[in-house]
Amino acid sequence: MPLGSARSLERTLLQSNNGTPDVKITYYEDLSVGQEASMSKTVTEADIVAFADVSGDKNPVHLDADYASTTLFKERIAHGMLSASFISAIFGMKLPGPGSVYVSQSLAFKAPVKIGDTVVATAKILELMEKRRVRFETVCAVDGKPVLTGEAVLMVPGRPA
Amino acid sequence: MPLGSARSLERTLLQSNNGTPDVKITYYEDLSVGQEASMSKTVTEADIVAFADVSGDKNPVHLDADYASTTLFKERIAHGMLSASFISAIFGMKLPGPGSVYVSQSLAFKAPVKIGDTVVATAKILELMEKRRVRFETVCAVDGKPVLTGEAVLMVPGRPA
Repeated sequence: MPLGSARSLERTLLQSNNGTPDVKITYYEDLSVGQEASMSKTVTEADIVAFADVSGDKNPVHLDADYASTTLFKERIAHGMLSASFISAIFGMKLPGPGSVYVSQSLAFKAPVKIGDTVVATAKILELMEKRRVRFETVCAVDGKPVLTGEAVLMVPGRPA
Repeated sequence: MPLGSARSLERTLLQSNNGTPDVKITYYEDLSVGQEASMSKTVTEADIVAFADVSGDKNPVHLDADYASTTLFKERIAHGMLSASFISAIFGMKLPGPGSVYVSQSLAFKAPVKIGDTVVATAKILELMEKRRVRFETVCAVDGKPVLTGEAVLMVPGRPA
């Protein structure tokens, strides 16, 4: 194959990857009880506006400072589902990561998240279940105080034989 | 008061409202078992990219068509939490609407949502509980087939005496 064609092929392969780094798959056999992963995110006003736009949830407690000042929260709060989405980010990106399938999630909203709060989301393996299901404890916390608690089940691929 | 000042006051009042229409509060006493509300949203590629950005969940099954073609879904799918956020939109905007507080939500992900799918989210009152808690059945469906099922509890304000 002439050098030019090889270069063209290489370029095609790189382009077909859409700029995504090689995807590392975690297999069920790689997991153990107690493993955990976290992510941290400071919630901005722009995040809340973006979440309102994409979800359609334009409840004024999220968007209207004057209205929010009349509520028990006293100021604008983030959507609870925004914190929940950080748990989804752990599952999609870190543990188990790509290849896993979200089966279920429970969410208990414990306290509001306000603009400028840094949410630390953590997912920890509680149980390796049959049929390659994995049960996780999921927590979002601000300043060490839980704002969202729950559990999740994911299905994880098995290592190819 | 001179006309100019009245106009200025009116402008100030309008501005302080941030463009939000007057907020109508639904009280616990207004609710009954069987009441329901829905919203419908066609999921676009832009919605998925926006959700990936705000959540941080850049799992390539959502963003990379080539990678997604190698998965059991065969094509890019929306984040499950995006459908969940449409339930949040019902609660924040329609039933019960502003003034209610999200207490808990369970989510069972039943089937993928693909680009171009129209998600119909519905919340229906199952039970009026003590302490102004209200329990809802929550469903997101595409072409009449459930993609996300669960239940939610919200706390709803009582009518002022």
